[in-house]
Amino acid sequence: MKGFFQLISSVEFIELFERFHPLNTETIPLADCASRILAEDVTAPEQLPPFSRSTMDGFAVRARDTFGCSESEPALLNIVGEIAMGTSGRDIALRPGQTSRIWTGGELAAKSDAVVMVEYSHLLDEHTVEIFRPVAPGENVIRAGEDTEQGQMVLARGRRLRPQDVGVLAGLGITSVTVYRRPLVAILSTGDELVSPDQQPGPGQIRDINSTTLAALVEESGGIANRIGIINDDFDTMFTACRDALSKADMVLLSGGSSVGQRDFTLQVLEHLQNSEVLAHGVAIRPGKPTILARTGNKALFGLPGHVASAMVVYYLFVLPLLHRFGGMTADQGLLPIPAITGEQIPSAIGREEYVRVELVRPADGSPPVALPIYGRSGLLTPLVKADGLLVIDRDSEGLDKGAAAKVLLFPSLS
Amino acid sequence: MKGFFQLISSVEFIELFERFHPLNTETIPLADCASRILAEDVTAPEQLPPFSRSTMDGFAVRARDTFGCSESEPALLNIVGEIAMGTSGRDIALRPGQTSRIWTGGELAAKSDAVVMVEYSHLLDEHTVEIFRPVAPGENVIRAGEDTEQGQMVLARGRRLRPQDVGVLAGLGITSVTVYRRPLVAILSTGDELVSPDQQPGPGQIRDINSTTLAALVEESGGIANRIGIINDDFDTMFTACRDALSKADMVLLSGGSSVGQRDFTLQVLEHLQNSEVLAHGVAIRPGKPTILARTGNKALFGLPGHVASAMVVYYLFVLPLLHRFGGMTADQGLLPIPAITGEQIPSAIGREEYVRVELVRPADGSPPVALPIYGRSGLLTPLVKADGLLVIDRDSEGLDKGAAAKVLLFPSLS
Repeated sequence: MKGFFQLISSVEFIELFERFHPLNTETIPLADCASRILAEDVTAPEQLPPFSRSTMDGFAVRARDTFGCSESEPALLNIVGEIAMGTSGRDIALRPGQTSRIWTGGELAAKSDAVVMVEYSHLLDEHTVEIFRPVAPGENVIRAGEDTEQGQMVLARGRRLRPQDVGVLAGLGITSVTVYRRPLVAILSTGDELVSPDQQPGPGQIRDINSTTLAALVEESGGIANRIGIINDDFDTMFTACRDALSKADMVLLSGGSSVGQRDFTLQVLEHLQNSEVLAHGVAIRPGKPTILARTGNKALFGLPGHVASAMVVYYLFVLPLLHRFGGMTADQGLLPIPAITGEQIPSAIGREEYVRVELVRPADGSPPVALPIYGRSGLLTPLVKADGLLVIDRDSEGLDKGAAAKVLLFPSLS
Repeated sequence: MKGFFQLISSVEFIELFERFHPLNTETIPLADCASRILAEDVTAPEQLPPFSRSTMDGFAVRARDTFGCSESEPALLNIVGEIAMGTSGRDIALRPGQTSRIWTGGELAAKSDAVVMVEYSHLLDEHTVEIFRPVAPGENVIRAGEDTEQGQMVLARGRRLRPQDVGVLAGLGITSVTVYRRPLVAILSTGDELVSPDQQPGPGQIRDINSTTLAALVEESGGIANRIGIINDDFDTMFTACRDALSKADMVLLSGGSSVGQRDFTLQVLEHLQNSEVLAHGVAIRPGKPTILARTGNKALFGLPGHVASAMVVYYLFVLPLLHRFGGMTADQGLLPIPAITGEQIPSAIGREEYVRVELVRPADGSPPVALPIYGRSGLLTPLVKADGLLVIDRDSEGLDKGAAAKVLLFPSLS
């Protein structure tokens, strides 16, 4: 017996991450940078679009030439040319009463300031067009620099790049991008009862579920998982495996062996690693209480609960935000919270935050989803297969009534 | 002029996907199957857990031996052994008044039916323990098969595998998995004005943004993107490029050239491909009206709007659900809808659904997020960088008042 846990709150746990800083960076081709995290601010080297463009097929005009025209009294304009796509509109300069044909995306003719849609025109002959509707200056035009001015900051450091962000980079001609390195995460399962998933368990043995699950979680979060596999639950084996794993990783996840008990060497191992500091041993959440966090330098070591369902909650609450921090993300850490309605009464104990696996049922009228708790002990895995996310019950709440507003943290793969 | 579009509704558009069926399947190792789509139902070949397990460190007992005990009147039990991890608990059979030490995850001793937590025990000597709290039968035990019974269906065909699903497969010893093939998507940008992102645009030219953006979208959706690049806006070039792309892809995305205009050959090309059938030409949404859908056999061809912002809306509304269908997903197609509050009045035109780019602001009290429209013409890209999703305004609505309940489709990378 090593005594009781010293529980800290989940907020205090997250605050410990301030001891860690982002990993170093690498420069990669534009085509590979989607979903990576930007390591420097990007300012526009040039304006976008580079010239004023039509947003319609039709006629580039001087807007004032169309003022007051109508179906019954069309404006008559003289067609002085056509701006072929990919050629400069500035080769044509409109004088009063003149127009030129233009296509969507084409560069406006010099002295033109608006475009009349082809639908509101009628060709009288190849040199003359009737315009039925007036246009205001700037109408159906995206002006040069309207999307991005030269020198404007377009994407901030710490942003996870989405498809549209990558599009902006392409538009600005930025074809290599500096991003944070993906965190390397070593995964170890401890337990003399464990066998690999491809082996047939003998009496008292069970297949290792945590390595596979945690590796999939790490990859889902943008990290690189290194599955070390199963190690026996004795101090020397664990110490050596941890030390070796740590030398090649930014983070080590140890699962199993983190409750208070005779055979639990995780804490001892983490205490004995060179220059290690145990930052937390126990957190006031359920499930997930026996979580351990240690560090050596800028490397983190987690002791996760042995039950996979509990380990997964701890992963999403703590490991994911720290991976985001390692990865350089500045905003919006962790799972996405959405409002929901509690589907049935859920009791909870004072003194710990509770994370309840729930299924979301979305009413057809678009009102907030109803969160239905999925029953089953915390050690069971299949309730997680049904779950859409985790409903949060505060530390000081005795539970939620049916119909009460609640916060649900969505599992990532739902969207 | 080829005349006006024949607009169909977004619902009618989605119904067209019934003409397409899932791609073929492949069998891959368990370690690679996260986020892939399951191509067959998985039933449990054996029960999980394989034996009744303790969920606590403590003492395996016959529950009735603890009935009525308390702090002041503890039950005295005789310790007859220890169930070491990874050994069979059935080697020890408890008689009345006997107990054996057990650890979390250990197999229960024969004839024991509950576990007393170590916290509620006190060792008198190495053979005798005092128990302070009674336990009910089954307490602190996960019984054999409680997670999964043998023969039970655990994962259904058409499911996108999440980390917990992969964990279940590991637990059941299923180390190779049959999934649907990832859709191959060829991406072509048409337009004589386009140059590649790594080139300096000349007068009237602009960099191709759509290829990069669409490729990132396809990869985000689990497809494999094949960037064909820029092709000139003439019938022969487009026809040849489309035909060649189609021979090596499940889907072709053509962007640019799908509005009604002299230089728009997309429709003609799609009509002239061998055995092609144009299923839709125009959809009553904004942005995205000039969308074209065609098919040859089970292959799909999309003509997307030239503006990247419009193309992205069409991608999420239509291309993504069809990719999911190709990929074999049975549930929950497309973007995740969440309830939100309209942040300011948004007018809309009757007769078309409107998809408004919005930023979500989450109130600290956990109430639904407020959706603030991001202004900027549909041709602009940077408003998409700020957007969290698309607010939907129905076809028959003239707009939404400030404070009105609204549905927002979340962009995937937010969570």
